[in-house]
Amino acid sequence: MSKGEQTRQAIIEKAAPLFNQRGFAGCSMADIMEATGLEKGGLYRHFSSKEELAAEVFRYAMQTAFDARLGDLPEGDAITKLRLMVERFVAIPSPLPGGCPLLNTAIDTDDGNPILLTLVKDALAKWKSRIRRIVQQGIDDGQITRSADPQSVANLIISTLEGALMITRLEGNRRALHDAQSSLESLLTMLAAKPAARLRKQNRRRPSHVK
Amino acid sequence: MSKGEQTRQAIIEKAAPLFNQRGFAGCSMADIMEATGLEKGGLYRHFSSKEELAAEVFRYAMQTAFDARLGDLPEGDAITKLRLMVERFVAIPSPLPGGCPLLNTAIDTDDGNPILLTLVKDALAKWKSRIRRIVQQGIDDGQITRSADPQSVANLIISTLEGALMITRLEGNRRALHDAQSSLESLLTMLAAKPAARLRKQNRRRPSHVK
Repeated sequence: MSKGEQTRQAIIEKAAPLFNQRGFAGCSMADIMEATGLEKGGLYRHFSSKEELAAEVFRYAMQTAFDARLGDLPEGDAITKLRLMVERFVAIPSPLPGGCPLLNTAIDTDDGNPILLTLVKDALAKWKSRIRRIVQQGIDDGQITRSADPQSVANLIISTLEGALMITRLEGNRRALHDAQSSLESLLTMLAAKPAARLRKQNRRRPSHVK
Repeated sequence: MSKGEQTRQAIIEKAAPLFNQRGFAGCSMADIMEATGLEKGGLYRHFSSKEELAAEVFRYAMQTAFDARLGDLPEGDAITKLRLMVERFVAIPSPLPGGCPLLNTAIDTDDGNPILLTLVKDALAKWKSRIRRIVQQGIDDGQITRSADPQSVANLIISTLEGALMITRLEGNRRALHDAQSSLESLLTMLAAKPAARLRKQNRRRPSHVK
């Protein structure tokens, strides 16, 4: 990484908690100058506008959050992966001060800032697609009931966790997140295919003459 | 209402969609002047600061949202009341442009603005308390299972609805809210006490010699 790239990355990392806590409108280029110790010229050499910086900061923030919560989900069955995803969201605080960058940026930009809005829509779509694929894998493996709708499961997991995070941050305790986890555990238990169905599925996979 | 009070109320009502869409930092007193057609002096005659105006706007916004969604819940059993509360949240769009003022203000202020933060905490506590009381009434009436925890039910209803609203606003369709409604319908069905328990409860209420 060149010295210029290092400076650029350092600006992004120092700006990230500010944007995440204060929102796009609540964070000025002057705040970033103060946090980075750079002069105006130094800052604008790397980012032509606050919009450009905010977009890079959001990409960095989401990558950090994805790595902490969705990164290296172990190989294994679908229910275990989903359970672990929920467990990590509840147990691991946002790596950035200010809570979940997806929720923050969604609320911050749903009535404005089209560049950030596109990025936050993409981030939501990526998370949902990750969950949908795991659910589909579980259905294909006979571990999750065929009646499960991967899209609905993704909506429910994300809704429940993000809404509970909002309550948890207001109340200053993790009760709402723990309630969300219990509820999603029940959902996953209900999604699990009955053992008989799993067995039928496994049997279908074997050549018919093998018992 | 005096002419002064009318002007004050008109300012609050014109400022409410602006604050709800843009957040506290994203909405300046100049924006309010433009929306109301008032000069700076006229505005500051009614509100000594942006903080004071934002606090009044939040109170107004929450009252409007509560009236639309929780107002005049019909007399009746607890499950019906909770079902209707969920149904209204899903069916009735926020009366203010910009989505739910509770969620918006929670995300906007959880790292700042202590006056608004206190107000949003109070609003959340009020909504939760409303749900808890209905659940407790259902338990007392034998309509809701004794194993239900009113606090957890309140957390789940609010988390699921608010999180789904975030997704719905990003995706531009109501799918996530409908998924939330189905999931909360299942929760309410599970909470409903078995008919046998209801019967026992009703019998306990009658004098023992009355069959």
